[in-house]
Amino acid sequence: MGTASFDHHFGISARVSEISRNLSPKLDFSSVKFPSRVEYCGLYLSPSSAVCSTSKEWRGQPNAVDESGEVGTPILDTIESPKHLKNLSSKELKQLAVEMRSELSTVMSKSKKAFKASLAVVELTVAIHYVFRSPVDKILWDVEEHTYPHKLITGRRSLVKMHRQTTDLSDSTRRSVSIYDPIGAGHGCNSISAGLGMAVARDIKGQRDRVVAVISNETTMAGQVYEAMGNAGYLDSNMIVILNDSRNSLHPKLEEAPETPINPLSTTLSKIQSSIFFRRFRELAKVLTKRIGRGMHEWAAKVDEYARGLLGPPGSTLFEELGLYYIGPVDGHNIEDLICVLKEVSSLDSSGPVLVHVITREDQVVEVERDQTPEVSNPLQEGIVDRRTLTDFFVEALVSEAERDDTVVAVHAGMGMEASLELFKNSFPDRFFDVGMAEQHAVTFSAGLSCGGLKPFCIIPSTFLQRAYDQVVHDVDRQKIPVRFVISSAGLVGSNGPTHCGAFDITFMSCLPNMVVMAPSDEVELVHMVATAAQIDDRPVCFRYPRGAVSRISNALRYGVPIEYKDGNKMNITL
Amino acid sequence: MGTASFDHHFGISARVSEISRNLSPKLDFSSVKFPSRVEYCGLYLSPSSAVCSTSKEWRGQPNAVDESGEVGTPILDTIESPKHLKNLSSKELKQLAVEMRSELSTVMSKSKKAFKASLAVVELTVAIHYVFRSPVDKILWDVEEHTYPHKLITGRRSLVKMHRQTTDLSDSTRRSVSIYDPIGAGHGCNSISAGLGMAVARDIKGQRDRVVAVISNETTMAGQVYEAMGNAGYLDSNMIVILNDSRNSLHPKLEEAPETPINPLSTTLSKIQSSIFFRRFRELAKVLTKRIGRGMHEWAAKVDEYARGLLGPPGSTLFEELGLYYIGPVDGHNIEDLICVLKEVSSLDSSGPVLVHVITREDQVVEVERDQTPEVSNPLQEGIVDRRTLTDFFVEALVSEAERDDTVVAVHAGMGMEASLELFKNSFPDRFFDVGMAEQHAVTFSAGLSCGGLKPFCIIPSTFLQRAYDQVVHDVDRQKIPVRFVISSAGLVGSNGPTHCGAFDITFMSCLPNMVVMAPSDEVELVHMVATAAQIDDRPVCFRYPRGAVSRISNALRYGVPIEYKDGNKMNITL
Repeated sequence: MGTASFDHHFGISARVSEISRNLSPKLDFSSVKFPSRVEYCGLYLSPSSAVCSTSKEWRGQPNAVDESGEVGTPILDTIESPKHLKNLSSKELKQLAVEMRSELSTVMSKSKKAFKASLAVVELTVAIHYVFRSPVDKILWDVEEHTYPHKLITGRRSLVKMHRQTTDLSDSTRRSVSIYDPIGAGHGCNSISAGLGMAVARDIKGQRDRVVAVISNETTMAGQVYEAMGNAGYLDSNMIVILNDSRNSLHPKLEEAPETPINPLSTTLSKIQSSIFFRRFRELAKVLTKRIGRGMHEWAAKVDEYARGLLGPPGSTLFEELGLYYIGPVDGHNIEDLICVLKEVSSLDSSGPVLVHVITREDQVVEVERDQTPEVSNPLQEGIVDRRTLTDFFVEALVSEAERDDTVVAVHAGMGMEASLELFKNSFPDRFFDVGMAEQHAVTFSAGLSCGGLKPFCIIPSTFLQRAYDQVVHDVDRQKIPVRFVISSAGLVGSNGPTHCGAFDITFMSCLPNMVVMAPSDEVELVHMVATAAQIDDRPVCFRYPRGAVSRISNALRYGVPIEYKDGNKMNITL
Repeated sequence: MGTASFDHHFGISARVSEISRNLSPKLDFSSVKFPSRVEYCGLYLSPSSAVCSTSKEWRGQPNAVDESGEVGTPILDTIESPKHLKNLSSKELKQLAVEMRSELSTVMSKSKKAFKASLAVVELTVAIHYVFRSPVDKILWDVEEHTYPHKLITGRRSLVKMHRQTTDLSDSTRRSVSIYDPIGAGHGCNSISAGLGMAVARDIKGQRDRVVAVISNETTMAGQVYEAMGNAGYLDSNMIVILNDSRNSLHPKLEEAPETPINPLSTTLSKIQSSIFFRRFRELAKVLTKRIGRGMHEWAAKVDEYARGLLGPPGSTLFEELGLYYIGPVDGHNIEDLICVLKEVSSLDSSGPVLVHVITREDQVVEVERDQTPEVSNPLQEGIVDRRTLTDFFVEALVSEAERDDTVVAVHAGMGMEASLELFKNSFPDRFFDVGMAEQHAVTFSAGLSCGGLKPFCIIPSTFLQRAYDQVVHDVDRQKIPVRFVISSAGLVGSNGPTHCGAFDITFMSCLPNMVVMAPSDEVELVHMVATAAQIDDRPVCFRYPRGAVSRISNALRYGVPIEYKDGNKMNITL
């Protein structure tokens, strides 16, 4: 039996290498055909019959749309909670997705705020709520921006419609608002950790509910996700992690990453991987190979993993190395495929953490008629000529400093959160580093740049600087390394709500022994502080500024002047 | 040409699968022979001749030791800075390592503090300083505990000898102390980020020095390492990351991980991987396959990576997925192999980040004669009967709570840093979770446990809680989730020095709106606070306590009493 199971794994390996060799002379990927029957240890399975028993029940045509052309939402109108989805047919589920997308596009056209991220996960949300039984099953979302379809079908449709038209902030996902929110979406990257906690608590209490954590490609840049996946692989609790991948960020170089292919090959493979038969077989093979001995077990598991990795997209084995069973990629806009894979994944007990890789697109906006109501003009804003923000003033001042001093560089963690930074990026593309959602790295990376003789300005919103507090303390302040922290979005942040409120930076920066903490009272002081920070080169310094437009005009303030000289004497500045 | 390079990759793949098939019937790994000649695109290379031109200069026998049996350190005595290593022969380098290990073992026997981690990297340190030119080349260490061999040969031998016998804390690695410390070793996991900063600064300034960051297996659990490796792969700056692996922590389940095999197969493979020829060829293949087209490039790179992954240890492709070229494993106690691989790695420009996987063992203590001088007794300590620490009192109180309430669980981030926790772990093995060096995950995981209906006590030393501050703010406090933070090692920590000083917790916890912050004045209050924290179940709570022994006896204080009832009335407690 042991030899048989080993052959099984090498059977795949040999098949892959056969496919690969066939590819070699042709250089044409479109011609690849997945073998119609896949051999697993002497048993034959046709991919089409391997799984998807549910597909027989469905009568709908793919991509069926409302042909009446009306904007009506007859099915969405009947959904007040996820349980109302359970009796819908495949056709009705697809129609529901169309209606949800239409409704969100309408809201988007009115609120001026992009719902693109939410539009990408409409089908995924429908499939998740169709397969799982929320609120008994726990469904955790990583990022607030993905949760609007979830809110639409969990009794908060009216809140979504009012989104950001009022000052009411209670539309964020939070435990106190809805039983369908097991934890509030925070700063991204928290859902696996929290989900794992719930899964372990479930196991301790002897319950049998399921935990689903949906992460996005942004969050795969954050360190906590790796900490959480490593621990999930170690604890081996049952949970399902769904990677909503709309940008292929798994690949280290985003711009070089090819579109992950969603072709019949990969879809069929995903279905086979997720089938009960295959996974039960894999469990059996694990036991057998473990009995044979450790070395063999390791090799067999590795070949299994690599065989799938070769057919999967870049990054798939990364999750396997961390201990999650990888399934994918799955087309995130095909409800039938999604339901099929999720049903299979959810039906197998005691199999440890699973990662389902779902490919979505963010260009799913439905064109809706623009609201013709003329915008009510705000008389208070009429007289304002200069609508520039404090960030604009900061960035212009930084560009001026960088023009005068070629050691000035900018590090930003936040993936383009500050649009004004484009000016610096375009002026000095080689001196601008956006490290993505990786604040800890951003701070220590800045310390390294400083040790290398440059003058880094490390630009992080106040609330996200909390993620790098230890690095600020130990890698910068304790070692008195001159890093200039630019704390943006300090204080209240209006419609972005409590998750982005920067309330604590003055407190947690002021207690550090070497840190110079500055806060300007207007845009002129801000510009002077940029110059001051550039000049202070023997210790770390920080300054903060809030969001929002500046109400008065500052004529031609291009260069800042250091507020304090190196010898500590204050300079006489007329503000 | 394109086809040729593609064949090259598949040549390896085919070879691997051939080797694998040969293995299958025998089930005996010791019989595996690496083919004497490896085919690369029609060119033949014998593994032994492929690299290691330096080996001819060496006259030493492997594992040559000082046969006189004397404790003398004739070679170490001549080393005042790394440049004094340059003219040593292979035999002398080995002898130097023997002397360094002997000296460190002597210090270890006197200071009662384990230097095991440092003893494991003696040969690695010698090899690094032999190959690289510190301080021009930057050598960054992740963890203070690994730096003693580095200090021995960078002019700080006398400081090492005095280690922890005085209150002088200046023996930690820090920029202000030595030009050979490009950055201070902090909380682990910072060296790749800082090294990448230095590498980028070097590139911007047009310099050519080399950057070497040494990480350890503990730090591969920390999220920042993944943030840094992902960004290193993206920026593609030249830098060398050395993974000092003494515990195989790459494998998700530590206890299941087999010993990574360091056999002729893997050693030969490491040498071939690191050879200039192979790496230049790989660069060329990259260019060629990029010209052919993206899909092909992806496939070729993947097959290359997997082919090496199959022969490498578990975890190797993880680094490749993150964008680092993986080389290894290399025997960390074989100076010749180490020098050979490091020389090859250091000699190739413009090849992006490289990870060298070095396997070391921590059981390298040399038995030395114990110091016969009788210990001077401390009269102040003579009268103390109870030498228990505050942690002991805390853990006993927590065990009592856990006996009375089966929802009490303990989460610890710190890998056995608190020895007293063994009592809880042994009493409730299923309710104790040590997540390793992953504080961010620990906090959100605790939030998840709490949402799942348990009562988590999250035990993190004060200084390391800084790493999870954002999770404390957003995943716990903002959502008012009842997590009990136990802040150990608060305040000064004696000989552990400034990197472990817990100075800021009162400040950064007190500003949070929902957090109950407590600090006991003695061990009796501490025990009552455990009971209080267990009872408060509608908001988060924290309490802190310092290190050190308790000076008075507290008779039979087994159960704490909540200081405050739920209705907010204070209870009358006689302290």
